[in-house]
Amino acid sequence: MAEPWRAIAERKRAERHSRIPKAWLIPSSPSGNGNLIGKHLDILSKSELNITQDYDATDLLSALATRKLTSEAVTTAFCKRAAIAQQLTNCLTEILFDQAIARAKHLDAEFARTGKPIGLLHGLPISLKDTFKIKGHDASVGVAALCFKPAATNSALVELLLSLGAVLYCKTSIPQTMMALDSHNNVFGRVRNPANGALTAGGSSGGEGALVAMRGSILGVGTDVGGSIRIPALCNGLYGLKPSHGRTPYAGQEGGAPEGSSKVAIESTAGPIAHSVRDCEMFLRVIGDAKPWLFDPDCLAQNWEQQNSISRSLPGASKSVLRIGIVRTDGHVTPLPPVQRVIEDVASALRSGSSTSSTQIEVVELDLSSLLSRCLKVSNGVFSIDGANTWFDLLESTSEPLSPWLQSRLRRRPAKSIDEVVKLQAQRLALQMEALQIWRPDANGQKIHVLICPAAPHPIALVDRWNSVNYTSAFNLLDLPAGVLPVRAVTKEDLAVELNEGKALNGWDKTNREMWGEKERKEYVGSTLSVQVVAPRLQERVLVEAMGFVDEILKGLDKKASSRL
Amino acid sequence: MAEPWRAIAERKRAERHSRIPKAWLIPSSPSGNGNLIGKHLDILSKSELNITQDYDATDLLSALATRKLTSEAVTTAFCKRAAIAQQLTNCLTEILFDQAIARAKHLDAEFARTGKPIGLLHGLPISLKDTFKIKGHDASVGVAALCFKPAATNSALVELLLSLGAVLYCKTSIPQTMMALDSHNNVFGRVRNPANGALTAGGSSGGEGALVAMRGSILGVGTDVGGSIRIPALCNGLYGLKPSHGRTPYAGQEGGAPEGSSKVAIESTAGPIAHSVRDCEMFLRVIGDAKPWLFDPDCLAQNWEQQNSISRSLPGASKSVLRIGIVRTDGHVTPLPPVQRVIEDVASALRSGSSTSSTQIEVVELDLSSLLSRCLKVSNGVFSIDGANTWFDLLESTSEPLSPWLQSRLRRRPAKSIDEVVKLQAQRLALQMEALQIWRPDANGQKIHVLICPAAPHPIALVDRWNSVNYTSAFNLLDLPAGVLPVRAVTKEDLAVELNEGKALNGWDKTNREMWGEKERKEYVGSTLSVQVVAPRLQERVLVEAMGFVDEILKGLDKKASSRL
Repeated sequence: MAEPWRAIAERKRAERHSRIPKAWLIPSSPSGNGNLIGKHLDILSKSELNITQDYDATDLLSALATRKLTSEAVTTAFCKRAAIAQQLTNCLTEILFDQAIARAKHLDAEFARTGKPIGLLHGLPISLKDTFKIKGHDASVGVAALCFKPAATNSALVELLLSLGAVLYCKTSIPQTMMALDSHNNVFGRVRNPANGALTAGGSSGGEGALVAMRGSILGVGTDVGGSIRIPALCNGLYGLKPSHGRTPYAGQEGGAPEGSSKVAIESTAGPIAHSVRDCEMFLRVIGDAKPWLFDPDCLAQNWEQQNSISRSLPGASKSVLRIGIVRTDGHVTPLPPVQRVIEDVASALRSGSSTSSTQIEVVELDLSSLLSRCLKVSNGVFSIDGANTWFDLLESTSEPLSPWLQSRLRRRPAKSIDEVVKLQAQRLALQMEALQIWRPDANGQKIHVLICPAAPHPIALVDRWNSVNYTSAFNLLDLPAGVLPVRAVTKEDLAVELNEGKALNGWDKTNREMWGEKERKEYVGSTLSVQVVAPRLQERVLVEAMGFVDEILKGLDKKASSRL
Repeated sequence: MAEPWRAIAERKRAERHSRIPKAWLIPSSPSGNGNLIGKHLDILSKSELNITQDYDATDLLSALATRKLTSEAVTTAFCKRAAIAQQLTNCLTEILFDQAIARAKHLDAEFARTGKPIGLLHGLPISLKDTFKIKGHDASVGVAALCFKPAATNSALVELLLSLGAVLYCKTSIPQTMMALDSHNNVFGRVRNPANGALTAGGSSGGEGALVAMRGSILGVGTDVGGSIRIPALCNGLYGLKPSHGRTPYAGQEGGAPEGSSKVAIESTAGPIAHSVRDCEMFLRVIGDAKPWLFDPDCLAQNWEQQNSISRSLPGASKSVLRIGIVRTDGHVTPLPPVQRVIEDVASALRSGSSTSSTQIEVVELDLSSLLSRCLKVSNGVFSIDGANTWFDLLESTSEPLSPWLQSRLRRRPAKSIDEVVKLQAQRLALQMEALQIWRPDANGQKIHVLICPAAPHPIALVDRWNSVNYTSAFNLLDLPAGVLPVRAVTKEDLAVELNEGKALNGWDKTNREMWGEKERKEYVGSTLSVQVVAPRLQERVLVEAMGFVDEILKGLDKKASSRL
């Protein structure tokens, strides 16, 4: 009989622990739900604090390229801070510190020898979600049956990052089966939200979200088939971007499903979780310019410069117009008051920000409730094509149980027939066709460049209370690139707003209203409210440009507000 | 009971015939296998002869845009010549002459009124394969059950062509089920090869090939999931190009399969059949610059200018190097002598053409026999996913029999399970991954830009004798853009070459060798030999540039040869 899951999991956690140098251990683990960001940093030198705290990835790259910083120094600093993040939030799966520091030294030596960097990511440490395969290391995705089975090949994106000179130093935790929005699995346990232990860290790239929030990583890569980059970015007050299918290499992942499955379902994509819009942009630009189509057959032959750009589509006029559609609900679950309020805050900031900028912003109300609410059923159909049989086979092979949250939600079902799958794909295509109308010029020749909508119908949820993924998954179904950006914290004023008196739209909406109880509300105070920006398919450049624009305007308002205090 | 197929087919043919004006009828149909191109043109005026004979589509567009020609004159000329082509080669399905001429007049009037053309295809008549839907007209695809069921919507490409000012005046015939390479169906009968009735007109866009060869169309649009653009182009001595998936709108076709099927199989794509490389380029450029992504959700947001270009990838150097890989066999069926010889002719022309051009051409031998021979099995698996059940249901509903050639080749089978489909998609992905190696720079940083290979292992086959589609279908499986271009006629010298003495590689190879019998050989003399050019995925611009380059060199040699006579 195979070794039972519990023993495997114990060995795996021991292995992980053993890979943290003794000198980097924290004497006792923290208790309580308090904010852990910036805590327990005693093992970092002043310069390591500076490296991990005062740069974004873009700045780090330029410091590395000009040899102001060595890769060894940068890598060591982030290894240390990742070790702390792991001990405080349980965010890591694979730890590759030794190997990473050795590579960093090698990169430094090569740079010294040749006088030039290896590539556009020379010396930069990048963290990866556990689903990426790194040769010689597990991609266990938190399932006992896949532990101690080191990958024989690199995922396509890993190959590409290494070719550009990046340093890979850790992988991050995910929920069992990746079909939960809270990152718990039986092998590694639960990822804690760094800012507030009562709230979820999100998922499925939840370890990545926590690690980046702890500044244990300056740039993380997640994957997203229904919200798995955007939700943990949102839960950790970060920037996260899900590209369209074909923009970044995804081939060769461990997704707990047979290779080829995504071809008949919804394609997952890889994208950044980061501290700034410009780091998201940098990631996409560098990948785009590195001929990703030579690494993954699904990647398009289109570099960054060849992509559509807002500035290019707004030529000439003395004051160009950027049109942004505001979408307030998906028609399935009505957003709770603070989410409604933050959307209105952004809309009104855009309206007033417009008067000072050289670009005139036009805010257009957009009702997509019919389209988006119909996306849900098709998404659910496509997500359940294989009936979770591969996952159940894996779990049962070591007698591993389902993760508690999944126990009432996931069961083995017969795989769908090819006729059912074809029908679902036809429904998907019809919705995609309908969605094209969003971007078509109206009778006056005016068109919407991007839209802004909630990324969830509630603030960052309590642990295991996430409700409805349609606000994110609809854009996977439609294959539109989408990013989240933090706007502001939940305030006491937000809490005072009561629900409207109408009836719940459906069971999901009812559950959502229950998340606005007295007990729940209190936990939300101070947590980050984010919005989602969505662009036309494969227009990632338009997306980050628009995100940057919105972010600037919001930061400008922040500054004005604080200067008045 | 439903009306039986024979009565429906008779009514359908009568309807088609009734749509040819009496004045355009040819007194008696021709007999024998002789060349019909340029025959029976008495009903054309001198200027109509000039319009249909002395222009390519690019020139016609500029004559239309400068009002040297009216759309009415051009449309009428091609309607007349299409009527002749229909009567001689049986190439049409739907005839829209009245409607087309009315639209042409309207376009002329609009131009006169506004002083500018409607769009980039203003006034140009374009013919379409029957699978395209035009509102109000059948897309019967030659099956009785689909006759007299006019389409309620336009296919996405039809919408786009109309928005650009094109004139749609006829649709063209295809083989029953589109799973044959000879265009016969029970409703419309068989398409005849215009140049030689003993040879096949090819398929599945066979009517399109015959119509364009007869100059009843200056620019035809076909679709290709295994060779259905390239094979009829080859069979009719024309230029034909199959784009990658996502380059041209394909949504909303009648393919005899449920909508959504292509999502789990190999995606068919739409592309031009034309008289010149520059017409193929014009078609792709105009479509690319018309925001096709607003018409079909699968189309990429990348206009023509944003695509990779050979000239852009060969910058600076005083003499740039264009590297072309020569692929002589797919490892499954060894090409017959004339096909081997034409590949060598082209390779040697490229080698010598290089010395005079400002671009240095490097010809590299490339052995892809392992890769390409393994494509066949996966292609066959994917092509048979739905077990032809939809087709059999359609046929049986009117008691229609299979087309004779298909009777021993096609039968109803159970649809594949989702597991089998996923496995096939994984195999496809692995082959695509392996194929990336073709384009990667070698140790010296040199890379191949395009490759040249046969498009079939034999010359234009006798009727119903086409053997093996792997030379074309492999590039659908790999999703690489591919075009064919005519090189030269089969000569008596070609016939003198005997097969090598070795054994046949397999049953397909044996059948191929049987196509080199004494009787068969004679029929090939004078028929066109073509080659296929293949580029990296989604690099259609690189493809047409390379095709143009090769075509120029071959024409240059032709001129040199004729000047020596």
